[in-house]
Amino acid sequence: MKKELQHKIDFKTKPQGALGQLEELALQIGQIQNTLTPELKNPTFLVFAADHGLTEEKISTFPKEVTFQMVMNFLYGGAAINVFCNQHDITLKIVDAGVDYDFPDTYKLINAKIAHGTKNSLKEPAMSTNECEQALAKGAELVKAEAAAGCNVIGFGEMGIGNTSAAALIMQKITKLPIEQCVGAGTGLDNDGIDHKTEVLRKVTQKHNVTAPKDILAAVGGLEIAMMCGAMLEAKKQNMLILVDGFIATSAFMVANEIDKSIKDNAVFGHVSNEQGHKRMIEYLGVKPILNMGLRLGEGTGAALAYPLIKSSIEFLNKMASFEDAGVSESN
Amino acid sequence: MKKELQHKIDFKTKPQGALGQLEELALQIGQIQNTLTPELKNPTFLVFAADHGLTEEKISTFPKEVTFQMVMNFLYGGAAINVFCNQHDITLKIVDAGVDYDFPDTYKLINAKIAHGTKNSLKEPAMSTNECEQALAKGAELVKAEAAAGCNVIGFGEMGIGNTSAAALIMQKITKLPIEQCVGAGTGLDNDGIDHKTEVLRKVTQKHNVTAPKDILAAVGGLEIAMMCGAMLEAKKQNMLILVDGFIATSAFMVANEIDKSIKDNAVFGHVSNEQGHKRMIEYLGVKPILNMGLRLGEGTGAALAYPLIKSSIEFLNKMASFEDAGVSESN
Repeated sequence: MKKELQHKIDFKTKPQGALGQLEELALQIGQIQNTLTPELKNPTFLVFAADHGLTEEKISTFPKEVTFQMVMNFLYGGAAINVFCNQHDITLKIVDAGVDYDFPDTYKLINAKIAHGTKNSLKEPAMSTNECEQALAKGAELVKAEAAAGCNVIGFGEMGIGNTSAAALIMQKITKLPIEQCVGAGTGLDNDGIDHKTEVLRKVTQKHNVTAPKDILAAVGGLEIAMMCGAMLEAKKQNMLILVDGFIATSAFMVANEIDKSIKDNAVFGHVSNEQGHKRMIEYLGVKPILNMGLRLGEGTGAALAYPLIKSSIEFLNKMASFEDAGVSESN
Repeated sequence: MKKELQHKIDFKTKPQGALGQLEELALQIGQIQNTLTPELKNPTFLVFAADHGLTEEKISTFPKEVTFQMVMNFLYGGAAINVFCNQHDITLKIVDAGVDYDFPDTYKLINAKIAHGTKNSLKEPAMSTNECEQALAKGAELVKAEAAAGCNVIGFGEMGIGNTSAAALIMQKITKLPIEQCVGAGTGLDNDGIDHKTEVLRKVTQKHNVTAPKDILAAVGGLEIAMMCGAMLEAKKQNMLILVDGFIATSAFMVANEIDKSIKDNAVFGHVSNEQGHKRMIEYLGVKPILNMGLRLGEGTGAALAYPLIKSSIEFLNKMASFEDAGVSESN
């Protein structure tokens, strides 16, 4: 199928390779779906929210309450991810993976709460092995339901004050880079704030002697990250196209990639984030993100913003004329 | 208005600056329209087509006939720019600025033909002063009509076998960079082909001792480039948002920028092209393109592909909740 797809791409009415990365995307998606006429069906984003015990150590500029307040904002449609999903006809679902707040049952929120936030990983593992397994399983269950409903392209976002710390810790444990190269400004720390965050995270990495992917996830991760990781692994099993967002989503992907190295075949990276560690994650994974617009918001926004470009790759493959169709002369 | 816009952007429910380049775009477009609630109305792309006498010197891999064949392809809806304009509800109009082919009157093509292609600029000026002025005026006239019909965002594309040569020549005359730094592979020359093209273009630059922008345009430009330049200048006068595509469109913009330095205020650059000179044009102009996807197709495709991101900047500005609206705590 790869050869046939490449032939179809090359004989569209354009110089060979002139659509650059769109041609690579068309080839990738055609191969995933094993067809010359791929389709993107029922695009869906799941946004996982959870709290982090490590916020006790003052590693974020925003108070912890912002996690549940932003979940409310998602439910009212006022956040960036709502706006971009609406713009691109993407179905958006919000998942409570572990917010430290009890939402009324009447809210249009998927209740997948494993705990009221993680524990403080400076003092103890963020979650128990059992909680981590539950989060992974719940993420898989949610994705299985979307696949059964006909979705074949899925993006993941997150909300959790403190979660750039969890992502940096996962990154450090997997890449073994110095912690300084994994830590960034998050929602907007100044240099003193970054120094403090770095020192806290250094101590956390020293506390937990973990190497297996799920052990890393449990020791220093987050409930939203674990659930997203389980969701990504299931999306690969279901042969969906997986849209990966920024720093935190990529930390979940890195764990998934340790568990199933073939997951990269199904993944498209929406953007490279302004959070400094993300560029190094991207290099570590050897992948090529679509956008580089200085975004650092999370929620899945970078992946949602890249969605029309992913769609453009399918559109040109399915709708452009070939040289033969159009009676256009080929190059010498 | 700049201060009020920045305030509105900063108090959306996200960390300050977290939407990166989208925030810069929202600020720019709000300032152009002098409002806190900008709108993109009747987005329209004009694609200008023309032939080039310099193709006699074998500076392209494609035969000259491809210009008119691709115009036919545009009219039948089979080209990349058709697909991407359809995807984003952009009105597309095709303009014959100087194709060396007589299209039947019944075709849905704007007949603005100034000549049957330019002359061979290795031997004589590509066009007369009068032809150049006619092309500029016609471009302005077409844009004035779009503005009168309610369009406030306009993109420009081009088709013309040989026109990366004309663009490289314009670039060299304006930037005064060595010709080697302006010449690229165009539709797909190999290294020998690029060497030959470079030597031809070096002789052309030596033949024409021109410095004034319109003299450069007439001596070494193209009819589609001149018409696009006139169109851009008028779009600035009409205070429209101007979407600039790749190497050839940027060469037209460079001439327009020499004539009216304020035009940059209204311009957004869709992408940085894989045609090697484009990066240097972008540096010379000191602008920041949206996409970097290795595109090198022209037709306006890079600008059309960037359009949903431009729209996203307006959408977040108009539709996201503020911290106050949403009851979300601000950062410390």
